[in-house]
Amino acid sequence: MSQSDGPTLGIGMVGYAFMGRVHSQAWRSVSAFFDLPARPVMAALCGRSADGTAAAAEQMGWAATETDWRKLIARDDVAVVDICTPGDSHAEIAIAALEAGKHVLCEKPLANTVAEAEAMAAAARSAAERGVYAMVAFNYRRVPAIAQAARWVAEGRLGAIRHVRAQYLQDWIVDPEFPLVWRLRKELAGSGALGDIGAHIIDTAQFITGQRLTQVSGLTETFITHRPLAGVSAGLSADTGNGSGAEMGEVDVDDAALFVGRLSGGALASFEATRFATGRKNALRIEVNGSKASVAFDFEAMNELWFHDHALPAEEAGFRRVLVTEAGHPYAGAWWPPGHGLGYEHTFTHEVKDFVEAIASGIAPAPSFDDGLNVQRVLAAVERSAADQSRLTAIEEV
Amino acid sequence: MSQSDGPTLGIGMVGYAFMGRVHSQAWRSVSAFFDLPARPVMAALCGRSADGTAAAAEQMGWAATETDWRKLIARDDVAVVDICTPGDSHAEIAIAALEAGKHVLCEKPLANTVAEAEAMAAAARSAAERGVYAMVAFNYRRVPAIAQAARWVAEGRLGAIRHVRAQYLQDWIVDPEFPLVWRLRKELAGSGALGDIGAHIIDTAQFITGQRLTQVSGLTETFITHRPLAGVSAGLSADTGNGSGAEMGEVDVDDAALFVGRLSGGALASFEATRFATGRKNALRIEVNGSKASVAFDFEAMNELWFHDHALPAEEAGFRRVLVTEAGHPYAGAWWPPGHGLGYEHTFTHEVKDFVEAIASGIAPAPSFDDGLNVQRVLAAVERSAADQSRLTAIEEV
Amino acid sequence: MSQSDGPTLGIGMVGYAFMGRVHSQAWRSVSAFFDLPARPVMAALCGRSADGTAAAAEQMGWAATETDWRKLIARDDVAVVDICTPGDSHAEIAIAALEAGKHVLCEKPLANTVAEAEAMAAAARSAAERGVYAMVAFNYRRVPAIAQAARWVAEGRLGAIRHVRAQYLQDWIVDPEFPLVWRLRKELAGSGALGDIGAHIIDTAQFITGQRLTQVSGLTETFITHRPLAGVSAGLSADTGNGSGAEMGEVDVDDAALFVGRLSGGALASFEATRFATGRKNALRIEVNGSKASVAFDFEAMNELWFHDHALPAEEAGFRRVLVTEAGHPYAGAWWPPGHGLGYEHTFTHEVKDFVEAIASGIAPAPSFDDGLNVQRVLAAVERSAADQSRLTAIEEV
Amino acid sequence: MSQSDGPTLGIGMVGYAFMGRVHSQAWRSVSAFFDLPARPVMAALCGRSADGTAAAAEQMGWAATETDWRKLIARDDVAVVDICTPGDSHAEIAIAALEAGKHVLCEKPLANTVAEAEAMAAAARSAAERGVYAMVAFNYRRVPAIAQAARWVAEGRLGAIRHVRAQYLQDWIVDPEFPLVWRLRKELAGSGALGDIGAHIIDTAQFITGQRLTQVSGLTETFITHRPLAGVSAGLSADTGNGSGAEMGEVDVDDAALFVGRLSGGALASFEATRFATGRKNALRIEVNGSKASVAFDFEAMNELWFHDHALPAEEAGFRRVLVTEAGHPYAGAWWPPGHGLGYEHTFTHEVKDFVEAIASGIAPAPSFDDGLNVQRVLAAVERSAADQSRLTAIEEV
Repeated sequence: MSQSDGPTLGIGMVGYAFMGRVHSQAWRSVSAFFDLPARPVMAALCGRSADGTAAAAEQMGWAATETDWRKLIARDDVAVVDICTPGDSHAEIAIAALEAGKHVLCEKPLANTVAEAEAMAAAARSAAERGVYAMVAFNYRRVPAIAQAARWVAEGRLGAIRHVRAQYLQDWIVDPEFPLVWRLRKELAGSGALGDIGAHIIDTAQFITGQRLTQVSGLTETFITHRPLAGVSAGLSADTGNGSGAEMGEVDVDDAALFVGRLSGGALASFEATRFATGRKNALRIEVNGSKASVAFDFEAMNELWFHDHALPAEEAGFRRVLVTEAGHPYAGAWWPPGHGLGYEHTFTHEVKDFVEAIASGIAPAPSFDDGLNVQRVLAAVERSAADQSRLTAIEEV
Repeated sequence: MSQSDGPTLGIGMVGYAFMGRVHSQAWRSVSAFFDLPARPVMAALCGRSADGTAAAAEQMGWAATETDWRKLIARDDVAVVDICTPGDSHAEIAIAALEAGKHVLCEKPLANTVAEAEAMAAAARSAAERGVYAMVAFNYRRVPAIAQAARWVAEGRLGAIRHVRAQYLQDWIVDPEFPLVWRLRKELAGSGALGDIGAHIIDTAQFITGQRLTQVSGLTETFITHRPLAGVSAGLSADTGNGSGAEMGEVDVDDAALFVGRLSGGALASFEATRFATGRKNALRIEVNGSKASVAFDFEAMNELWFHDHALPAEEAGFRRVLVTEAGHPYAGAWWPPGHGLGYEHTFTHEVKDFVEAIASGIAPAPSFDDGLNVQRVLAAVERSAADQSRLTAIEEV
Repeated sequence: MSQSDGPTLGIGMVGYAFMGRVHSQAWRSVSAFFDLPARPVMAALCGRSADGTAAAAEQMGWAATETDWRKLIARDDVAVVDICTPGDSHAEIAIAALEAGKHVLCEKPLANTVAEAEAMAAAARSAAERGVYAMVAFNYRRVPAIAQAARWVAEGRLGAIRHVRAQYLQDWIVDPEFPLVWRLRKELAGSGALGDIGAHIIDTAQFITGQRLTQVSGLTETFITHRPLAGVSAGLSADTGNGSGAEMGEVDVDDAALFVGRLSGGALASFEATRFATGRKNALRIEVNGSKASVAFDFEAMNELWFHDHALPAEEAGFRRVLVTEAGHPYAGAWWPPGHGLGYEHTFTHEVKDFVEAIASGIAPAPSFDDGLNVQRVLAAVERSAADQSRLTAIEEV
Repeated sequence: MSQSDGPTLGIGMVGYAFMGRVHSQAWRSVSAFFDLPARPVMAALCGRSADGTAAAAEQMGWAATETDWRKLIARDDVAVVDICTPGDSHAEIAIAALEAGKHVLCEKPLANTVAEAEAMAAAARSAAERGVYAMVAFNYRRVPAIAQAARWVAEGRLGAIRHVRAQYLQDWIVDPEFPLVWRLRKELAGSGALGDIGAHIIDTAQFITGQRLTQVSGLTETFITHRPLAGVSAGLSADTGNGSGAEMGEVDVDDAALFVGRLSGGALASFEATRFATGRKNALRIEVNGSKASVAFDFEAMNELWFHDHALPAEEAGFRRVLVTEAGHPYAGAWWPPGHGLGYEHTFTHEVKDFVEAIASGIAPAPSFDDGLNVQRVLAAVERSAADQSRLTAIEEV
């Protein structure tokens, strides 16, 4: 008996911090639960530090390492390049990989600027013509509850969409002593809460409703304008330590962003992204109200989808807590019996499952780089609006 | 034994629809639970229809009736005029009553226009110099949970306020066949969801935080532009019937309003008022995030206040469900043992309790007509912003 | 105009502590919201202390006072005797009143012993033949949510009932310094948590299911066996103060009772009544699982009824939060618009409404004294079982 | 670079159905997240069908296969035997493995009879003297929330424990057409809901409180006495199909079990295990009330632990929702940032992590086979009590 039977798909991953760890778990687990057309092989991991990369590869189960992403792309055993680095390097790596004929899975936000995103989307369109595919990693689309919500909308269960209210609330930088990590520096992260977590709710809102934002009005704020300096590689780790006595640096990204807008189908939508919502840890929340039904979701209780069927008699109607763990729910049938919940990492397992299937089937995966570009344009429009007295700003179509 | 011992306060009420019924229950009950300096006496009820007013007075326990509000004001046994009519008549009645030396409790929104509200506020300031008081009936301030939230903010428990997110969600006009009742007609109601329920969340947000909105950006929408005509007196009653086959009229108020803004203390605030949130019945919700703690509330579970104390160790911190039914909570001690909840009407009982105490003590009651005027200016600014591409619009100070 | 038109019903109430206050509010309010065949008149209040009774009557709106319940019964203006005293006096007062031709509303538990309850039930049956009615005040039947649950069971929505799990959890005597109030003394209260709050969940379970308990197995415990002595009249008030340094007395009632049993329709049922559930204030909870649907309720959120419809596809099924505030819900239509909740006191308002209607219609009210006797027999069976190694004990049919 | 550096631990697993799949995921993932003293190697999988086992091994990543568990035990590359079969085979396999010097992880319940469990516990004690360890797989101990609850109790945060109320509610056999799978046959499963899920809540209650049940009173029921026959291997899969028209067989295990009892520290405890709680999917719930604090948990929301601190002022006390995803929580620090939840399978990952560490450190793992025997004795006592009129039955000490 051997596991080497059947086609395989060599994966090369760039970056091994938070995103790299969770992508690794996805690649490691996916073929044990989903019957894939090709079995992913964790071929090589790439990082800047040879020692750090080697240690990470051993812990996470990557067969080889590289310290230059160009060499990773060039490897014969790498068919897919999985980009888990900060946003400032996405464009260069992704375009090179696509041009080299490698499929690309790229973390979000797609890029730090619209221009970069446009170049990436163009490269992806061109590659697709050669059967080489690109996907942007908006993993929350693969929360079973969110996929179920989108399914209901697509089936017409919600009727005409009237309202979307989406929030992504965290509280990890409430403390003014929390240091100036890379996610708080514009040159590396592009923007603050807006791009990091606001991007997720933009994509989620558009994914569930099947509509695009047409115009937005934005308001942003930086509550803590100076923070202790931290090393460039620091992420959002709680053990980064505080920077008492350290030299201070300026926070040049937003701490929070509010924006409202209109969807292509006529709905009103409101968004809030913040890292200052004390007590909220990872509350990606969305409620969609339609003329026939509503759905509500909070990632802090990710196995629950709340559904209100407005067609029922008023005496028995109400939001019901659907545990999205039934065999008939998206992705859920591959896992455990009803009521046995999934966790954060499963969204990535589902993501790579869909990506592998898309590659094998020759059907372009979603969300595409065009979808990523669209989100980038929304983010840019929010920033332009915020800089111009919150004036309603149109989103250019992709 | 007699109940007539001690001072009394004669109440005259104008209007006996929804608001009149709940005000009546407040006046009827208040002195059984609170030890007031003067016992309210339900002296006279005023309505346009003699028969309707008589029937309402008998059912609700008013000792006499009038069909002309001027005569009500003129009655010797009326010391307080309680105005429960639609907004278009507030200014005229309130100003006349104050000038006649009668204390005034006026339903919200204070008026249908800023100009009317300014006249009313001026009349109230003038009357106050003569010991005659006016109060606008933002009853939600007297939900024990909301009052407790305000208390914690005032005590500094929340630290620096960073975010307010407030929503007032209802769903009673989702059906396009729901008729064009007075609340959907600009000439009578002033505005739609914005003025009717948006006014409440503006006041609640400012009350809890102790801060004022300084600027707003708004977006409004009318989803259903034409509805079957209904009688002018129709309220929001579910048994208004639908208007199939009836003549259609134009809805000239908003169905929903989104607005964001800044508070005087530097927080960001977002607001949504809608009658199209399918499945939400009377969801006045507010969450306030401060640097030290957060509170969250939903009127659909009005006896619960959620409190997160950020000073606790992370391992044991979280939003806790405080049942606001303890003797030490605002208003609650007058009622039942812990865990025995109150209902909607109690907010009005608390309101008239505070109003009677204010009158007796000679300390001006809150919310004042100036507070009502301020809310009116916020509403007007939202409308101006919405009409001007959501441009940030400053709120004039009262 | 006069309120004296139409028939009236004179009420005489005995006792003016916690129960007396809430009954008063019910009598005071009921005819403002329900169109009754006779308008209750708060004729006379009876208590042992002349001064205390007079003060209570004035505050609560009773027209006259008595200090001897026999005189209250004898009054011509009293047609209904409302008994709000501790359980040791129920039998004597109720039987005398019924024999005097007065309708009786009696607080629960019906009596402190089965023998007393039997005598009361016999008196009630005899009186009913003369058109004189008795009702035991299991007010929780008149929570709209509980009435709705019973309605669904009666309509067959739940199918075959499989499980009932009922709890009544409080925490007001967790502190060992809490004094030995009357509710903790067997001679006055009959039993502890079992009779005081366990009685409510027995009645509620039987009311919702329409079935009777046929056998029970019980387990009881007194965690704190000695407490500081307190005055005999002390209730459950939080300001009773602690008894540090005071003389100690023995607690001769249960602090908590667990019991399980079978219902006449074949379901299993479990019950827990305790005053030691730290953090639970008035958590009367019940869940009923049927073959077709389930309901779940917690009085701490009394306007919510959770309903699971098992006939729906698994992908969209789940417990839904029904706000029991719709016009079509039991009692709710008399009050406010959807989403505007009711409070504890409303259960009593509904209770007296039903009682007045029963008297006027000549249809015996429920719960009857036979129902009260049945609950008493269940309580006695639990105690016998607990004293006999939890052996399953049959409940004698009424 | 190589992953073969450092010590390894060869795992051999018997059974590859539901439990086998989840154990596989645990072995596959554990060393990527925890820094273990030895890296588990998935050496061999054993099942009765050669083809089925081979397919499962390939899918789940086992390097080799066996069809005779004796051969699995004999393999040099197997140091740990992981038993994932139905309960009737546990004793034979576990004892043989321990005698062969292999560490044993055995699924629960430990055995189908007390006699078998006693033999297993004896074998485990004997093996432990030789440094060979055995552990029973009560995975729910490794839910971070449950481990945190136990930690608080151990730290004295809850004070004197007064109440435990534990339920394990499922609904997967409500349909009378659901077939007679092995879990409904006494010869294979030992008992019904009692042994399958009741065992979990017994262990969880004792684990959290650190106390043992000393006596129990039980009540059991089989609602559906005959079901369509199904293949012997059928588990609880939803796609087992219904058995319309099939031959019927008798259900000789309980559908539901209620039991109450006393804990060694004086608390009252109630338990309910059922597969007929319509709408409850995998609701392992437990609430523990202590004199100083309470905790409440529901596995359907497994990342949340509700905590009430009774030492706080009443005005701000209440059950708080602690997201058990902080670095300081048990196990959680190895995974994702706060608010990014875990799923069902992680409880097994934590279990094998603790087991590997125990083996390496020479400290006996918990729960031990003695713990498993104890649970078996509780189950047997419940059955004896249920057969004897629910009489309180003592639990023999292990």
